[in-house]
Amino acid sequence: MPGLFITFEGGEGAGKSTQARLLEAHLRAAGHDVARTREPGGTPGAEALRDFLLFGGHDLSLRAEIMVHFAARCDHVDRLIRPALDRGQVVICDRFVDSTLAYQGYGLGQGDPQILDLIQALGARMGVVPDMTFVLGLPRTRALARLTARGQRSDRYEAADEAFHARVADGFDAIARAAPGRCLPIPADRPADAVARDIAARVDACLASRSGPA
Amino acid sequence: MPGLFITFEGGEGAGKSTQARLLEAHLRAAGHDVARTREPGGTPGAEALRDFLLFGGHDLSLRAEIMVHFAARCDHVDRLIRPALDRGQVVICDRFVDSTLAYQGYGLGQGDPQILDLIQALGARMGVVPDMTFVLGLPRTRALARLTARGQRSDRYEAADEAFHARVADGFDAIARAAPGRCLPIPADRPADAVARDIAARVDACLASRSGPA
Repeated sequence: MPGLFITFEGGEGAGKSTQARLLEAHLRAAGHDVARTREPGGTPGAEALRDFLLFGGHDLSLRAEIMVHFAARCDHVDRLIRPALDRGQVVICDRFVDSTLAYQGYGLGQGDPQILDLIQALGARMGVVPDMTFVLGLPRTRALARLTARGQRSDRYEAADEAFHARVADGFDAIARAAPGRCLPIPADRPADAVARDIAARVDACLASRSGPA
Repeated sequence: MPGLFITFEGGEGAGKSTQARLLEAHLRAAGHDVARTREPGGTPGAEALRDFLLFGGHDLSLRAEIMVHFAARCDHVDRLIRPALDRGQVVICDRFVDSTLAYQGYGLGQGDPQILDLIQALGARMGVVPDMTFVLGLPRTRALARLTARGQRSDRYEAADEAFHARVADGFDAIARAAPGRCLPIPADRPADAVARDIAARVDACLASRSGPA
């Protein structure tokens, strides 16, 4: 059986990394072979490009920034995600194409149709499409409280203005509405274990349907 | 009048940089406002990406390498080429999309249709298309003699095997055949001033036709 590709999306503080870890543990306990990864990054080349973007101090045009994200993503897909799926693994990825669409397309690009077209054209050429995407939704005030509690308010996006974050949130909503078969909106303003049970139930159902009666 | 975008393409040693400089001097002497640039590079962000690719020691997948080239190109177009053309300048660029198609598509990618499609889809979204592309042709044995004389045999491509260079040369031929209106093949196995006269005559004719009778 081919692997299963699951992505987690949503704003900072929504609990993507926590839920990715909890889902990995749940699937491993059930005997599945799991590869958990994240973007930007995931392979040595992609991590180097992530460092170039986040810490290099280079002032790139928005289109150039988008292309660097996709360069990292290509390496990640070619070297880790595609081979893992070909081996039949469940791949759990913290952020993927939808994050570029939400942050660079809707957030920084303010929904510019040419920028959205560029991201979508690239996304369509990655060679892998998530089977399930959990879009974690959390009101911005709650996300800020969580980030402050974690001491994680220094990221470039977190320091940006609230109008930007509102555009990103609207972007994730638009993405989820446009792909209702793939995207599963998950309310995240709940205890992590309650969110995790919802997600595990959805994934278990999907896996059961795939390994159903021959 | 909008600017004119001229690119030089061809293998190493064919004389692209020399001809770009000679054309710049010719046009400046005739009173034109010229911006001469080169790829990969051309802006601080693009140069940083060029350094990342050529000297960073990172092992990227072919698709990731192509994306980094296009990231640099986006910055170059957004920050230098597009603004210069909008100001009405003649932009002379040493290598552009055709080089990615020839080196990464036909050379490294060995003409893989998915790789060629990726490069062409990106090329079509750059927002600028050269008005004239001079494709300098030089037999490989002559190019090698020139490069040896210049002490320029250390580049990664020059160290690669001759089959690779044959694929790149065939790629440039295919590119020129596919776009006969834009691409002008120029035999380069001649003294530089003879080549320069040919090129200047073509550009002068183009400029004259654009500023012709109202």
